[in-house]
Amino acid sequence: MSSRQPRPSQGGPGIVCVGLGPGDPELMSVKADRLVRGARQVAFFRKKGRPGKARQLVDGLLAQGAAEHAMEYPVTTELPVDSPAYVDLLARFYDDWCLRLEALAQTGQVVVLCEGDPFLYGSFMHLYTRLRERGQVPLDVVPGIPGMVGCWHATGEPITWGDDVLSVMTGTLSEDELVRRMQTAEALVVMKVGRNLPRIRRALQRTGRLEAAWLVQNGTTDSEQVARLGDVSDDACPYFAIVLVHGQGRRPEAAW
Amino acid sequence: MSSRQPRPSQGGPGIVCVGLGPGDPELMSVKADRLVRGARQVAFFRKKGRPGKARQLVDGLLAQGAAEHAMEYPVTTELPVDSPAYVDLLARFYDDWCLRLEALAQTGQVVVLCEGDPFLYGSFMHLYTRLRERGQVPLDVVPGIPGMVGCWHATGEPITWGDDVLSVMTGTLSEDELVRRMQTAEALVVMKVGRNLPRIRRALQRTGRLEAAWLVQNGTTDSEQVARLGDVSDDACPYFAIVLVHGQGRRPEAAW
Repeated sequence: MSSRQPRPSQGGPGIVCVGLGPGDPELMSVKADRLVRGARQVAFFRKKGRPGKARQLVDGLLAQGAAEHAMEYPVTTELPVDSPAYVDLLARFYDDWCLRLEALAQTGQVVVLCEGDPFLYGSFMHLYTRLRERGQVPLDVVPGIPGMVGCWHATGEPITWGDDVLSVMTGTLSEDELVRRMQTAEALVVMKVGRNLPRIRRALQRTGRLEAAWLVQNGTTDSEQVARLGDVSDDACPYFAIVLVHGQGRRPEAAW
Repeated sequence: MSSRQPRPSQGGPGIVCVGLGPGDPELMSVKADRLVRGARQVAFFRKKGRPGKARQLVDGLLAQGAAEHAMEYPVTTELPVDSPAYVDLLARFYDDWCLRLEALAQTGQVVVLCEGDPFLYGSFMHLYTRLRERGQVPLDVVPGIPGMVGCWHATGEPITWGDDVLSVMTGTLSEDELVRRMQTAEALVVMKVGRNLPRIRRALQRTGRLEAAWLVQNGTTDSEQVARLGDVSDDACPYFAIVLVHGQGRRPEAAW
């Protein structure tokens, strides 16, 4: 790990990536709220032809006339994530946006919008390491409430008790890997669900966890959907949905 | 899981537990900030004779004249957490405060202050399940940025890449259990460190993770301390410190 990059002064030139939290704008941090409302330039990732989840979360918060830079992924699910073509396309995409944001940040602050927490499976991490390595502009990252935290609150149930281990994994793992990881955890979160749902479901079944599993979409937003996984089909599940199983660890019981 | 409890109306009678986030008051959510500043009655857990971590986080934010209720644990580390005496003392403590908060909440809103996220190993969970079961007063919980999120940001390094699995465990597990859980995770967070540090250190050594481990205390606060675990001794480590190991998963490399 390298020494710390200088941080931008308040409103000054540089790049600040802001974690927007799970969805509800009221769950943005005080700092994120101030940075987003004051931004003169924002940038955000999106799939081509889509509004972009991060951009949607700040609807109504951006100042009039703020410049918007949509960083459109050259590819999302069209190629396997471990294929050389996918890796190369993404690498060049991040290289390119690193240089473009650097140029934009020379004269004014660029606020990069990221759903959830930027350091937990966030795309900005790929820009962050590049920007840090080059060291050309001040750089900062503001933590956010991870999407999974919003999702366990959406179920109305605590995620871990006592000595429960919580394991957070991605639905992109193979079925056997999912099973192996599920076997050593009491509480589970599976991210990047979407088209991986049938495989996740089979792994939960094999580990005896299917009945306790929940599927949460758009947790903490107006379009929040919470369902027992056993009650929903595999069709048309969005990538940003989360599967979770609550821990059932030790706790001192009530007398009544 | 039961059906949802009614939530308190704005400022109305009932109980709202507020996640305060990792430490920096600017990382409190917009909603938490408003609730804390507007509270006429607050309650918080603390160890006897201590100010209480949650209470410290809102220093300077509480309104003049807000009534403060310190919920003092009858026992913390004096007894083993799985001994019948410990479990019984804690159970009666939570029963008692459930009834006392219920009484206080009949006429006005009680804001319960909790560091981090209340549903991730939070003490309020024990009051939450009791209050929900009894169903006497409106009840709500506001998510917060977990302490561990603030701690991985304090290291300046993302916690998970690509398909990395993140496992969150407590230092109260046995050494063999720690080893077993560490073996199936790329990224690790160990909470509840304190006097468990020597055992955590041995488990990291046995799994070949010690050199990559960090110890973070008071992440995101003015007293933040970040160190390689190998560089610090086992002495006087606080309970709220966090040990973490970053994942090193797949990522598209920069061309330069």
